[in-house]
Amino acid sequence: AQRPTVSGFGRLKEAWNTAIGHSPSRFAIGVFTLLILLFTLLFSLPIASASGTVTPLADALFTAVSVICVTGLSTVDMSTHWSAAGNVFVYVGVQIGAVGVLTLASILGMIISRKLGLRAKLIAAGDTNPMRMHHGPVAEGQAIRLGEIGSLLLTVATSLIVIEGAVALLLFPRMLIDGVDPGTAAWQSFYYSAMAFTNTGFTPNAAGLGSFSNDYFFLGILAVGVFLGALGFPVIFALRKNLFHPRKLPLHAKLTIVTTLILVVAGAIVFTVLEFDNRKTLGGMNAGDTAFQSFFLSVMTRSGGFNAIEIGDLNGSSKLVASMLMFIGGGSASTAGGIKVTTLAVLFLAAWAEAKGNPDMEAFGRRIPQDVVRVALSVVFWGAAIVAIATIILIQMTKDPLENVLFDVVSAFGTVGLSTGLTETLDDPGKYVLAVTMLLGRVGTVTLAAAVAASTSSKLYRRPEERPIVG
Amino acid sequence: AQRPTVSGFGRLKEAWNTAIGHSPSRFAIGVFTLLILLFTLLFSLPIASASGTVTPLADALFTAVSVICVTGLSTVDMSTHWSAAGNVFVYVGVQIGAVGVLTLASILGMIISRKLGLRAKLIAAGDTNPMRMHHGPVAEGQAIRLGEIGSLLLTVATSLIVIEGAVALLLFPRMLIDGVDPGTAAWQSFYYSAMAFTNTGFTPNAAGLGSFSNDYFFLGILAVGVFLGALGFPVIFALRKNLFHPRKLPLHAKLTIVTTLILVVAGAIVFTVLEFDNRKTLGGMNAGDTAFQSFFLSVMTRSGGFNAIEIGDLNGSSKLVASMLMFIGGGSASTAGGIKVTTLAVLFLAAWAEAKGNPDMEAFGRRIPQDVVRVALSVVFWGAAIVAIATIILIQMTKDPLENVLFDVVSAFGTVGLSTGLTETLDDPGKYVLAVTMLLGRVGTVTLAAAVAASTSSKLYRRPEERPIVG
Ligand SMILES: [K+]
Ligand SMILES: [K+]
Repeated sequence: AQRPTVSGFGRLKEAWNTAIGHSPSRFAIGVFTLLILLFTLLFSLPIASASGTVTPLADALFTAVSVICVTGLSTVDMSTHWSAAGNVFVYVGVQIGAVGVLTLASILGMIISRKLGLRAKLIAAGDTNPMRMHHGPVAEGQAIRLGEIGSLLLTVATSLIVIEGAVALLLFPRMLIDGVDPGTAAWQSFYYSAMAFTNTGFTPNAAGLGSFSNDYFFLGILAVGVFLGALGFPVIFALRKNLFHPRKLPLHAKLTIVTTLILVVAGAIVFTVLEFDNRKTLGGMNAGDTAFQSFFLSVMTRSGGFNAIEIGDLNGSSKLVASMLMFIGGGSASTAGGIKVTTLAVLFLAAWAEAKGNPDMEAFGRRIPQDVVRVALSVVFWGAAIVAIATIILIQMTKDPLENVLFDVVSAFGTVGLSTGLTETLDDPGKYVLAVTMLLGRVGTVTLAAAVAASTSSKLYRRPEERPIVG
Repeated sequence: AQRPTVSGFGRLKEAWNTAIGHSPSRFAIGVFTLLILLFTLLFSLPIASASGTVTPLADALFTAVSVICVTGLSTVDMSTHWSAAGNVFVYVGVQIGAVGVLTLASILGMIISRKLGLRAKLIAAGDTNPMRMHHGPVAEGQAIRLGEIGSLLLTVATSLIVIEGAVALLLFPRMLIDGVDPGTAAWQSFYYSAMAFTNTGFTPNAAGLGSFSNDYFFLGILAVGVFLGALGFPVIFALRKNLFHPRKLPLHAKLTIVTTLILVVAGAIVFTVLEFDNRKTLGGMNAGDTAFQSFFLSVMTRSGGFNAIEIGDLNGSSKLVASMLMFIGGGSASTAGGIKVTTLAVLFLAAWAEAKGNPDMEAFGRRIPQDVVRVALSVVFWGAAIVAIATIILIQMTKDPLENVLFDVVSAFGTVGLSTGLTETLDDPGKYVLAVTMLLGRVGTVTLAAAVAASTSSKLYRRPEERPIVG
């Protein structure tokens, strides 16, 4: 009452600026929380379930988190529990979740650009400024210039429509050949396509991939969809521009593609070695089947979440390897989760440079600034802390073996959706723990980016330096 | 024959300089390997075993590695397998192993000081050099100045004799009160004292700590011995100088002491919460016993390795927490293993500064330079890689549960010596895998320090900078 009257629009704009500008990390968490609450409500509605009854809160919330975070874990049978309306909610939810991450990344990028504006100008004025190498302007690969936002959003929309459409068009005739009726094939081809490209991994069939688990054409297309989704939009954006000039790709795209390929191949080889004599998984297969299934599993740990072999039947060693791959996850600003492949690459390059005694980290003829290392290790530190705490709580609750609990927790954190079978046996408190893990895993890195963006505090003095011994 | 004649001493000196100066990391590994081979031979001798027979190679080697690396894991019953001569080998071996680590650290420190000499002078000449903050001279806490080496070695010898002597003198009368005969009490008090301060954790009694496992006076003294040993000689050195002026302590000592205390207290609280209703461990105890046993277990994961409760009876959650604490380990240049508490502290401070958006990491009014972060993450990266690979191999070999395999592998890597019981069931290939893990865990950080010391390559040009997206 004491303040001068402000128009409704002005107040809204003010609130918007306050929300985004002052605390982008709270804004990111707020957006995700609102979406989750909305979808919890939708999934609770009687029209959403096949039985026409209210879905219990824990299951509705878990499904909402799993959908919005494109995780793919479930506490209900996804193929039978939901009605047609429920399936539409799932379909729309994963698209919103997948695009939402990038939209937030774009908004945060805009904020970063704005905040860096003044500083970048000052630095440009003083080209010899020694701080430049550490706090210089964000390079081409990362900074989303204001003029690029439109172009970027267009790429997102285009790539979503083109890639999901293409995948659906390839799946549809194959499903007809496999004897699926045209109506079911029509909606399921789009459902599968969305679940692949958004890296969600829900399946509309009763027995997981069911009859398709030996259809290598079908599985191969799914794997391609998952792979493209997990690369991340910045890489797709860069590829669209420089597809036929790979040497011109920005460092970020090169690092993402090379690290992803190394992880997929190495994962496939390790799974083959560990499982070739396991009768329950690859033991009874011929060489071709073994190779394909190892590759498929390796790609799916990126964060696809489809499984053609039972995860619960894997050896403990394979479960641990899969957990490590899921923790790493996919590309930055992608529909995949985890700490991201570039984070691993930067940590490896740093550890390598340290072992070689090089002051600089280098990759593809470029020097990577030291401050990127600190961001990378922060991501891993908080990620490991989240996984450790969730695992300790869930083991204590369930008294289940560590390899299964760790697997499902990392699957939730990395928004992968593969499960040893533990998730569906959880009681309500366990479901809530896993739901929080999914949410933190999904918004964690977005939040971190926001925290970096919010870094405007500049100190007038620096404390004296002292060097502790480490290691 | 073509070269001019060199005196025997000259040649020896040349070989010495080549070995240490050119590749200190190989030198460190070489010293440890020679010691291990020597003690493998000693433990193989018939006079070393109580039965007067030759101990199998796998067991002799495993014991030698466990002794020289002050780990405390065993594949034979340490209380009955060895003769008096064998026990003397164990006693002498752990003292050599414990002092050996620091001696190597001193030599490496000397090399670092020498190599930095020219560079430090150049930097001092150009005080405004922007590189100073990142590659400045090693600060007081870390650099072992040439003149200090003598003083340092004196501290090592003094602290070893004084602390082990004091601990033995406290244990001896207590053992007499407990009804042990004077002869046995005399040698066992020194044996226990050495096993505590060197953080080895072997026990001369048939049933582990046997009759002492409820003697809180006895256990308390052991815990103090372990705690002091795990702080590390640089901290003991600093404490001797500034015991009554804690604010004057170097940053390294403050970080080590505070982080260690936080870990001990937090560990004790977590163990209490996770085990208070576990009938096999703390479940049947009153509040006082529960508190003491939780503290004792927490201190022992630092890398002491004595256990008053059966590790195999702990809940999976507690085993995971203990594994995490063992991975962290004790202080730098101490008899404890692991990645070291200061490494964790630096990573936490870096992750904290990143989340707060601060360009500098600060602790106790000091700024910690960025290059320390890279060393810290390298230690963790290689450590995690060693633990992961050893765990995957051993799970695949034994098909045992992840919580037990991970526990024993981390116990080996962190030279802790606690065991879920897995180690004694291993076949020969399994013993070799664990022996390699112990050796890598022990020399890993020494080697890394050496690699850093060897870092003299200075490039004439720097590559253009580019910043990948991480997280
Ligand atoms: K997923
Ligand atoms: K030990």
